Amino acid sequence: MRAVVLITDFGLSDHYVGVLHAVIEREAPGTPQIDLVHDLPPGDIWAGCYQLRCAWPHLPPDAVILAVVDPGVGTGRRAVAVQVGERWLVAPDNGLAAAVGPAVRVIDLDAGAMGLAEPSPTFHGRDLFAPAAARLARGDAPDRLGRDGDIALVSCPLPEPRREEGGRVHGAVIHTDWFGNVITNIPASWVPGDAEVRCGWVRIRRRVRTYGEAPPGELVYLEGSSGLVEISVNGGSAAQLLAIRRGDPVVAVPGG
Amino acid sequence: MRAVVLITDFGLSDHYVGVLHAVIEREAPGTPQIDLVHDLPPGDIWAGCYQLRCAWPHLPPDAVILAVVDPGVGTGRRAVAVQVGERWLVAPDNGLAAAVGPAVRVIDLDAGAMGLAEPSPTFHGRDLFAPAAARLARGDAPDRLGRDGDIALVSCPLPEPRREEGGRVHGAVIHTDWFGNVITNIPASWVPGDAEVRCGWVRIRRRVRTYGEAPPGELVYLEGSSGLVEISVNGGSAAQLLAIRRGDPVVAVPGG
Amino acid sequence: MRAVVLITDFGLSDHYVGVLHAVIEREAPGTPQIDLVHDLPPGDIWAGCYQLRCAWPHLPPDAVILAVVDPGVGTGRRAVAVQVGERWLVAPDNGLAAAVGPAVRVIDLDAGAMGLAEPSPTFHGRDLFAPAAARLARGDAPDRLGRDGDIALVSCPLPEPRREEGGRVHGAVIHTDWFGNVITNIPASWVPGDAEVRCGWVRIRRRVRTYGEAPPGELVYLEGSSGLVEISVNGGSAAQLLAIRRGDPVVAVPGG
Repeated sequence: MRAVVLITDFGLSDHYVGVLHAVIEREAPGTPQIDLVHDLPPGDIWAGCYQLRCAWPHLPPDAVILAVVDPGVGTGRRAVAVQVGERWLVAPDNGLAAAVGPAVRVIDLDAGAMGLAEPSPTFHGRDLFAPAAARLARGDAPDRLGRDGDIALVSCPLPEPRREEGGRVHGAVIHTDWFGNVITNIPASWVPGDAEVRCGWVRIRRRVRTYGEAPPGELVYLEGSSGLVEISVNGGSAAQLLAIRRGDPVVAVPGG
Repeated sequence: MRAVVLITDFGLSDHYVGVLHAVIEREAPGTPQIDLVHDLPPGDIWAGCYQLRCAWPHLPPDAVILAVVDPGVGTGRRAVAVQVGERWLVAPDNGLAAAVGPAVRVIDLDAGAMGLAEPSPTFHGRDLFAPAAARLARGDAPDRLGRDGDIALVSCPLPEPRREEGGRVHGAVIHTDWFGNVITNIPASWVPGDAEVRCGWVRIRRRVRTYGEAPPGELVYLEGSSGLVEISVNGGSAAQLLAIRRGDPVVAVPGG
Repeated sequence: MRAVVLITDFGLSDHYVGVLHAVIEREAPGTPQIDLVHDLPPGDIWAGCYQLRCAWPHLPPDAVILAVVDPGVGTGRRAVAVQVGERWLVAPDNGLAAAVGPAVRVIDLDAGAMGLAEPSPTFHGRDLFAPAAARLARGDAPDRLGRDGDIALVSCPLPEPRREEGGRVHGAVIHTDWFGNVITNIPASWVPGDAEVRCGWVRIRRRVRTYGEAPPGELVYLEGSSGLVEISVNGGSAAQLLAIRRGDPVVAVPGG
């Protein structure tokens, strides 16, 4: 039995996530189920892609990922199961399905082929995606979920960083986390130790290895746990201090 | 081993929910446990009933449901296990135990009969309800939980809709969800496609099938995932736009 | 397979908790995993100790507890596995590891000894603590996690109550919960039924057994579910009414 990893924007104040779990338990009893995160802003595909991409290297090698951020539920957008390496990702084709690595196979989900009733036009998570994930977890052949479809998926909305000659890196804020860390899309390995990180009018020169080694209150940058440049304040919230927003530009300048 | 489905108003910032899980794992190791929802307003029996009723059709057929919204914990209210179809619902008898369908059997829970210590007067969830649910999940006979009691339960507080001759339907707002959808107690199947939905001074004429097909910002109504009429705004919050409250009246008028 | 019980300050709006679950499932497939609480204020060791101490008596007897509130992650603080009775607690040595009872054995965690890659300096939860907890859960010998270390741990920050001759008890507020109950560190068993509880300028004379038996709106005190004196308002929030903060002094005076 493969584990199912769930990520949605359903929040935690409704039965929506619980019902996904219930459907998976009903269709594939005993399947280990792991909640990645559900408290994403409603409809925020970017956030879903970011969280999924960070978690990806640490998931069980054969996990089935059920990812539902689906503002277009019931409309013409495709509903797919995507094979990436040994894993399957079940998601709407709205950018989320392309969050992690190249697809080697794409199935267009078909409720009829799975023997399911007509899905509610407003809750494919419950009626289409969760049953599909459960079938993959219990070992059903992927071609029992629908037909092979076009391998080209809607692009993931996460912006990519760009490296100039001379080493200057142009990136963007892609997330602010629970601790107030401001996370960029700049790989820390692209940035030499003497670089200055510029973000609006603020210039950050001090690079640290751990949150705790900076003097309290001082803005520093460091390599975060996903290998990305992250701006932080020891004991405080860099996000509050910088009044910065997702998508805002960040530049790393070697030698300051 | 039956799955236990948990719904409480304990929130997620205390150990209370975790301790229920721990007690169930201790008393019935390996039982699958499913969190339905815990982030309900404290003491809100109505919300508990609503969420449970929506999830009910999708739970595993033999699930044991542990439902604890219990402002009267430790007082004279009954603590019961209620058989509804093949499922058992363990809950205080304050309306929550009557949220779903007719009881075919009611057991008055008895800590002594279960070999438990005297429950804390302030946490029957941990000391009475969770051990009872664990016993049912592991297959103990129901009569080992206590004695058969009066099958008449305190009524569920959810209001019922009423259909006039001529087809006008009088209902009420029963929930606003994480996405800002305003959910009524009116079955969508009672409402013809040309009906107007009236809510305070607002009249909504446009019925859609999916959230995404409405022009952004426009109030529409549709059949939600539990078959109820729901008022929605594509990309926004109908709840904020309408400034509506739970219990407020909603009328569906055929032909507008 | 032992159950792993998780408590962190990682919140629920990032992938951080989900990744702990994924690592445990990857390293010890099928291990039951129980979330105790994750929505603690960032870096709040006190809160972690409080929640863990309350839950402790109710956990499975052989549980492995993974506790990560770790503002000093990556710095010189020790990372340990602590045996307390039959249970193992995996945590940073910053007070959290000492929250519950005396250690009978302490292992200094060593990523190399566990065959792990160098941990990210900012996420030992994922790269060191979770793999250690998974190894204990699946039955690895503790000495495969690292070497036996000094049994003296950094002290838990929770204040202890003090009893004067004559029976007056000096304590402090140690938590306000989701329901607005103000929880003190004073054991209810130290306080006779006729005592007055004093908190700032407020004096509370009425002791009750259950939340529901107090007149709505009146401040009362009672024995909470962990055996501690708790100040409560039936149907309201004592925390809001008292405008009290954690650490504020509380005195129980026999005979008022």
